[in-house]
Amino acid sequence: MSEHENGWERSGKQPGQDRRGFLKASGSAMALGGITALAVGMLSATAAREKKPVSAKPRIARKQVILFQGDSITDAGRSRDRASVANDQGGLGSGYAAMAGVGLLLDHPGYELAIYNRGISGHKVFQLAERWEEDCLKLRPGLLSILIGVNDFWHTLGGGYKGTVETYERDYRALVQRTIDALPGVALVICEPFALRAGAVNDKWFPEFDKYRAASRRVADEFQALFVPYQLAFDRALKHAPADYWAKDGVHPSAAGAALMAHTWHAYVEHGGPR
Amino acid sequence: MSEHENGWERSGKQPGQDRRGFLKASGSAMALGGITALAVGMLSATAAREKKPVSAKPRIARKQVILFQGDSITDAGRSRDRASVANDQGGLGSGYAAMAGVGLLLDHPGYELAIYNRGISGHKVFQLAERWEEDCLKLRPGLLSILIGVNDFWHTLGGGYKGTVETYERDYRALVQRTIDALPGVALVICEPFALRAGAVNDKWFPEFDKYRAASRRVADEFQALFVPYQLAFDRALKHAPADYWAKDGVHPSAAGAALMAHTWHAYVEHGGPR
Repeated sequence: MSEHENGWERSGKQPGQDRRGFLKASGSAMALGGITALAVGMLSATAAREKKPVSAKPRIARKQVILFQGDSITDAGRSRDRASVANDQGGLGSGYAAMAGVGLLLDHPGYELAIYNRGISGHKVFQLAERWEEDCLKLRPGLLSILIGVNDFWHTLGGGYKGTVETYERDYRALVQRTIDALPGVALVICEPFALRAGAVNDKWFPEFDKYRAASRRVADEFQALFVPYQLAFDRALKHAPADYWAKDGVHPSAAGAALMAHTWHAYVEHGGPR
Repeated sequence: MSEHENGWERSGKQPGQDRRGFLKASGSAMALGGITALAVGMLSATAAREKKPVSAKPRIARKQVILFQGDSITDAGRSRDRASVANDQGGLGSGYAAMAGVGLLLDHPGYELAIYNRGISGHKVFQLAERWEEDCLKLRPGLLSILIGVNDFWHTLGGGYKGTVETYERDYRALVQRTIDALPGVALVICEPFALRAGAVNDKWFPEFDKYRAASRRVADEFQALFVPYQLAFDRALKHAPADYWAKDGVHPSAAGAALMAHTWHAYVEHGGPR
């Protein structure tokens, strides 16, 4: 699959150089959270660790459908009644997806973007697959952002779920392949599942949970999706405030945690990585 | 009243120069929306029109209580059950107050800020006054942001409300004086009521509604509060997308409109004006 086919363009352009319309003069359209030193440091460290160029850049295009998919972290109390209304405050919920989404709406007012959230609490990859036709493919997203995996591990701890990290990776790969087959031009964003040592997250989680994070990165790399390294974002944020500031139970982000996620998402999706 | 007493400091410092902690290295901590060309143009035009220095700067302080007050635009579907939980995604609602609030949480992770929203749909100034003890003074905000006035006018159009712009200004002035008497150190943000010619907003609104906007500015000036010029922000945004993109009924902002408001709020409150 060529880079073109999966909807990303790689180029040597400066940030903002290929922006159109009213953003052209600025080239600095950050969404929620903006360029804090925290974020700058975080992203620079990410670039160093990744040891690869970070020029992957999605195409935010006119009349594009943008879909956020995932579990409770994406769901974030969204209204089911409003799920089919694009750009709706109720339908987008109150988490990172809403915050990242409204940032796109503010940055691209002339683009007529249609942003949806279809995350559902408790879901694992196989449950996304079960509702993929209705909750993804039918919407025909031009940009699809997925955050999935914490339940694929968590529910094995007394939840009766028998899946393994191999199940997760195999199912995830199949889901992405199916998506690309149905939507050849889709730009894919794969967000890393994360956990903070607080609340429900204890020693039982490690190192097993780390394997799920690594699997999500392999899937992203395999399909040349843009990978958003949320674990690193939270690990660095923990140097500035304790875990319960970012995610009280270690899994579900607080308002501050969701803002950090939205900021990080924008840094990667709007600017292709650290800037 | 001195500038110190109402909680603002005016200085010739560069943006970020007096920031503390992890933001020091950046000096560019925008919240939602960031520095778009739209915003840059908007704020520069505001500065030109205001013909005054824009160095007023609130004190965002450690352990500060920050309160958003107003009508439905502030309310934005917030959970009443969660109203007393600081920094809560449900309690903050899904409007500009939530978006501006989470930006503060991201920009100041070490500050232990406590952010509340107590806006109530349909309210006018006198209704804020009726619940002010419980919904403002008892919380002892260090920074108080008020957006009120659209209903003070709107409800006179067939709603049976008999108040005038003089009622609005007199009540508003009394409310602010009462607040400062009870909380001498409070930093005040007075947000301009606004209306877009769309939906419920027709020719009947003008020029009478403009008088309410002017009154809110007089109250802000009188008490040296920071004034957030929302009408200008929306007027300029209308050059980039039609009214229903920003506020379908002309009064209640869409997700994009709320993002614009949060961005504008941060530009003024975090940076004292255009940058």
